[in-house]
Amino acid sequence: MITFDTHPDRYKHWQLTFDGPIATLSMDVREDAGLSPDYKLKLNSYDLGVDIELADAIQRLRFEHPEVRTVIVASLKERIFCAGANIMMLRGSSHVAKVNFCKFTNETRLAIEDASANSGLRFLAALNGICAGGGYELALACDDILLVDDGNSAVSLPEAPLLGVLPGTGGLTRVVDKRHVRRDLADFFSTLVEGVKGKRAVEWKLVDAIFPTSRFKEAVQARARELAATSDRPEHAAGIVLNPLNPTVTESSLKYSAVTMTINRDKRTADLTIQAPTGPQPSTPDEILKAGDQFWALRAFRELDDALLRLRVNEPEIGTVVVRTEGDGAAVVAIDRTLLAHQSHWLVREIIHFMKRTLKRVDLTSRTFFALIEPGSAFAGSLFELALAADRSYMFHDDNEENVVTLSPMNFGPLTMSNGITRLQTRFLDDPAKIAELAALDAPLNAADAEEAGLVTFAPDEIDWDDEVRVAIEARAAFSPDAMTGLEANLRFAGPETMETKIFGRLTAWQNWIFQRPNAVGDKGALKVYGQQGRAEFDWKRT
Amino acid sequence: MITFDTHPDRYKHWQLTFDGPIATLSMDVREDAGLSPDYKLKLNSYDLGVDIELADAIQRLRFEHPEVRTVIVASLKERIFCAGANIMMLRGSSHVAKVNFCKFTNETRLAIEDASANSGLRFLAALNGICAGGGYELALACDDILLVDDGNSAVSLPEAPLLGVLPGTGGLTRVVDKRHVRRDLADFFSTLVEGVKGKRAVEWKLVDAIFPTSRFKEAVQARARELAATSDRPEHAAGIVLNPLNPTVTESSLKYSAVTMTINRDKRTADLTIQAPTGPQPSTPDEILKAGDQFWALRAFRELDDALLRLRVNEPEIGTVVVRTEGDGAAVVAIDRTLLAHQSHWLVREIIHFMKRTLKRVDLTSRTFFALIEPGSAFAGSLFELALAADRSYMFHDDNEENVVTLSPMNFGPLTMSNGITRLQTRFLDDPAKIAELAALDAPLNAADAEEAGLVTFAPDEIDWDDEVRVAIEARAAFSPDAMTGLEANLRFAGPETMETKIFGRLTAWQNWIFQRPNAVGDKGALKVYGQQGRAEFDWKRT
Repeated sequence: MITFDTHPDRYKHWQLTFDGPIATLSMDVREDAGLSPDYKLKLNSYDLGVDIELADAIQRLRFEHPEVRTVIVASLKERIFCAGANIMMLRGSSHVAKVNFCKFTNETRLAIEDASANSGLRFLAALNGICAGGGYELALACDDILLVDDGNSAVSLPEAPLLGVLPGTGGLTRVVDKRHVRRDLADFFSTLVEGVKGKRAVEWKLVDAIFPTSRFKEAVQARARELAATSDRPEHAAGIVLNPLNPTVTESSLKYSAVTMTINRDKRTADLTIQAPTGPQPSTPDEILKAGDQFWALRAFRELDDALLRLRVNEPEIGTVVVRTEGDGAAVVAIDRTLLAHQSHWLVREIIHFMKRTLKRVDLTSRTFFALIEPGSAFAGSLFELALAADRSYMFHDDNEENVVTLSPMNFGPLTMSNGITRLQTRFLDDPAKIAELAALDAPLNAADAEEAGLVTFAPDEIDWDDEVRVAIEARAAFSPDAMTGLEANLRFAGPETMETKIFGRLTAWQNWIFQRPNAVGDKGALKVYGQQGRAEFDWKRT
Repeated sequence: MITFDTHPDRYKHWQLTFDGPIATLSMDVREDAGLSPDYKLKLNSYDLGVDIELADAIQRLRFEHPEVRTVIVASLKERIFCAGANIMMLRGSSHVAKVNFCKFTNETRLAIEDASANSGLRFLAALNGICAGGGYELALACDDILLVDDGNSAVSLPEAPLLGVLPGTGGLTRVVDKRHVRRDLADFFSTLVEGVKGKRAVEWKLVDAIFPTSRFKEAVQARARELAATSDRPEHAAGIVLNPLNPTVTESSLKYSAVTMTINRDKRTADLTIQAPTGPQPSTPDEILKAGDQFWALRAFRELDDALLRLRVNEPEIGTVVVRTEGDGAAVVAIDRTLLAHQSHWLVREIIHFMKRTLKRVDLTSRTFFALIEPGSAFAGSLFELALAADRSYMFHDDNEENVVTLSPMNFGPLTMSNGITRLQTRFLDDPAKIAELAALDAPLNAADAEEAGLVTFAPDEIDWDDEVRVAIEARAAFSPDAMTGLEANLRFAGPETMETKIFGRLTAWQNWIFQRPNAVGDKGALKVYGQQGRAEFDWKRT
């Protein structure tokens, strides 16, 4: 079983060092410490294990090191920055594993950009040598890219010409949409195995600056200081500690403090339940700091995030996740209000953005989510986003109208989806009047009202509830899992597209297609024969 | 060989009738007249041949019938509107054929929306009965959908639950992005084989109105008149005739009046050459009307459009198209200026939008385009869009600086891509100053200046030209065709996404992926076993 818990003390592939406001995150991949013994992680190439450490480092920099303003992403290997995803690993991976790997690495790179855009944490890629494929895509996620000018070191995206696949971590999208490299130059660059170096790399906007070897380190430090000056992170704050989550794991369940996931393998479903907070809650930044990672908003969403990640990589056959909440919705709304009242505080800001990223993880998980809103549930405010993120929601229409859902200000702004708008805006596309009407509500809604307001899909009464819910879940589980993945990937993202949704929509969908094609993965496919004797043989039909 | 030339007199599957400003385009598919004898086109189901007639009808309504303001899309079969794409046809089609079929049908439905948005031609879907899958997607492309309320007739998208694939003609995108059906209702609807009928179909925004059988015809006519009142088409204009193009066809070439395409099967390339106009050209709407379909702007682009379509369906192994122009660039610019000076005239408007749609067809053709700009070429104004649409352009840097490219106002607005912006805006993304600078230029650019301005990719001189161009074309032809398709589909569409690009990017890419998956097309795949004995068997892994 793959788990996502790690810590800088246990990193095998990265070193994290600190110098006041500047941290250096250095890649030094251990060849023999891949997740599988079937491949060697040569030349700072990576597998999912390497990326799990990277994701952990970025998270800890946000929560544990508020004093850090610039992160230099560097390498400890001489004249090698990073050779990208390990090709032997990709070759040996199943389709599902390849797709899941790309999804997680994409989320990690987007987390880098999120940290820069929303948390004042600048990232500087210091390319000291070979920077190919996923290595360059990691650099592309940074704010600034400096390349050593040694007559040899180049940036490249050799996937298409060498392996017959696309750069899978947003490379094509970021080259044209983020760095605004001209599309014809991008076309040339993306078909060039040897890449582009020196002055041309700057002229084409592939990197921001080049420096000779003798001045490289100094230039990196100087640029890191410049970037630090653009940050709004606090000067003398102390971070909190992100302790291990330590869920109780059985063959068919994961149990955290506020989150439980039960796997029903025979039905190919999972039951996911999130508990609302209980007892007194912190109401000031100081109290939140003191609560640290035990503060419900952070704790529950960290647990949810971890459960989703484990589900993705360890339970591929679980097609439907039934989401429930339990407890006091008013307590969730109270926490939402506390968070928003203090959102300018660095830690509160981090918590809100973490909740946002976790909910995006739901949107991007290729499993069906059905929310069941039953008496005793706590679908309120930020937890109600789970119902909005679900493909459908069923709300029990009870006679005494005690089963309610509640909106909070958290539903109207901070928790944006990848498409840049809120789940309510996506739900009521181009209907701002409807959103305004909902925002003006200041009371919980019973089932009839919630259905009338369009906040839930169906509201069966006691007579219908059991059958309707059971049939819906059973029917879903019987459909083609691929068709459901495609259906959900389209219906979940109504409205605008952003660089982020382009990476998961357009780029990922094409890559998944290519990852299935004999031209890549057949016996004579380019990904299969790379590094072996013989050349790839293609079916030349253009599709 | 599949060709695209047809005429209402020869339609097998549609009937086009006229009643003043209201035309009725009625589907009456001949079961035994499919493109292949392997399937029967039952229940108004369709194959590419049916859609070629539909595309022809829409085109002729724009050019030949300027008096028409509303098109009623109807059926002549009782209680059957359209059952969608023929499933036996899909089952028997190769992956390439399926993908090409979907691309063309998507372009045709977008042509309906283009006619409404830009040509004042309103479309009213009159659903007199069964309206499933592609049948409902055709309705979704119309401005208004009226459904008979007979207790039985429903709209449905049964592809996912029944066949394990997606609705492939924009259905999912249009449901949420055009009609703003709530995503959870869209999820439910898209998994419901029997579809949604009656009042619920209206409440969920799936259709605009329902009428009982007794009042249906009358209601359709009334609504058609209302829609006609919103049109700005001319009252008493006479159309022009779109005559057959009649190219000279050999085993390896297509020769039209202004367009030539030569197929080099051994190299897997095609040479595509467009001739600039020669001789005196019309300069007023009356002269353009008189010239009719022989006016260069319409004739050359119709020929280009036809050549692209034939290439797509008949020459799947031709991976690279080398685009050249010949003649007097100034003559192209002069025509561009004439068109723009009279763009409010109905025919001129039609010609400009047709040029736009043809150039979109280039963007959406999954073949590499390299433009070669050589002495004697005419890459000017609207023809220069071909260089901008190309994945790369090579401009011969001649010593005497006679080889030039020229911009015209046509490059700065009317010829938008599917992403809603011009090719220059896409090329210089987020750099309006650069666009303004180019718009202010009022002279042809030689190779050095064009390269400096970023208008061409490379400008090799006489010493390098032959080798550089040859190597580029040979290298391209050797790459994985799938990787090139994916690469181009990403790099060509920098910048914003629209409903149109979502259909070709997100939706199509997912559909292509599903079309490759054993869960759809394997021996036990849903698409393979539909209508046979036995049930589909799925690999349950979610991807």
